[in-house]
Amino acid sequence: MLSLKQRIQKDGKLFPGNIIKVDSFINHQIDVTLMNEIGQEFKNRFNDVKVDRILTIEASGIAIAVIAAQYFKVPVVFAKKGESRNMDKDSYTSSVYSYTKDKTYKVKVSKEYLKSGENILIIDDFLANGKAIEGLLDIVNQADAICAGVGIAIEKGFQTGGEMLRQSGIRLESLAIIDAIDEDSIRFRD
Amino acid sequence: MLSLKQRIQKDGKLFPGNIIKVDSFINHQIDVTLMNEIGQEFKNRFNDVKVDRILTIEASGIAIAVIAAQYFKVPVVFAKKGESRNMDKDSYTSSVYSYTKDKTYKVKVSKEYLKSGENILIIDDFLANGKAIEGLLDIVNQADAICAGVGIAIEKGFQTGGEMLRQSGIRLESLAIIDAIDEDSIRFRD
Repeated sequence: MLSLKQRIQKDGKLFPGNIIKVDSFINHQIDVTLMNEIGQEFKNRFNDVKVDRILTIEASGIAIAVIAAQYFKVPVVFAKKGESRNMDKDSYTSSVYSYTKDKTYKVKVSKEYLKSGENILIIDDFLANGKAIEGLLDIVNQADAICAGVGIAIEKGFQTGGEMLRQSGIRLESLAIIDAIDEDSIRFRD
Repeated sequence: MLSLKQRIQKDGKLFPGNIIKVDSFINHQIDVTLMNEIGQEFKNRFNDVKVDRILTIEASGIAIAVIAAQYFKVPVVFAKKGESRNMDKDSYTSSVYSYTKDKTYKVKVSKEYLKSGENILIIDDFLANGKAIEGLLDIVNQADAICAGVGIAIEKGFQTGGEMLRQSGIRLESLAIIDAIDEDSIRFRD
């Protein structure tokens, strides 16, 4: 998606350790016009797929998911994050390891909002090691639902998440794949 | 806003202690059609007001704010929550006491995304004691920006937040004000 790549190139901020921040248009401030282009692009890419619900994870996945949901005309469910306390029995729960924060947190989705046999499109802003997406897939499996695909705005192609998902046969659509971050430039996959 | 009140009446879940949960359409699962009606209604109510940016707080404020922002055609900034650790110096920070969780957390907004003299519309899903909104107002003041108004989907009118904001001269627009929760029914303000 050209406009997203151009925006990342223009406004993404690079930090040591292959860190890229897109706080000015996705992760802290949200450019709603760009979000709409992203939502429309997800609809174009998954247009042949039946989608009953969109699943994402709080907090920064919510904006992309709700804007995209307008094009799919389905509800959004966002997984809630919590400490490793007791989660209620009415929820599907999974554990997610965060490399950024070096800790494991729980994610949960109420059993009311994921039903057996439904087609679930997972949408998130970033894909790096894929741990959050693995947690969401685990929850979709627990619900006996079907993953219709995974839509990602920005994939860090030099980390393992994308490869892992593609090899497991999941349909992954990443709108911008970063193959390398050099000192002051970003190389995208064609 | 009639359709919101009807939906709360129909799908809101009541719990002891005046607790109402709207997890099935706002706080966990999101009904994007209703969200659009809410966003449009905020635009109607604040149509005479200049708005440069919309400010909300993660996580559940994000969905309402980004959908509403489409009608205002402005960016959204969401305040990030954190534990009481050091926050970076490039951010405006405030403290918010949560009655639900009985703890104080920090909220922060990068100084890059709130500018002096700008007109900031604050949007959130719930208003009860108003502590989160007070924190956001504190941040708007620190930025030397102007609060153009506060838009709330559901106000608990029997708690003090709404009264406090109105008395301080802030333009508050709440789309559904709950005046009382009885055993199994909800009474709205006219």
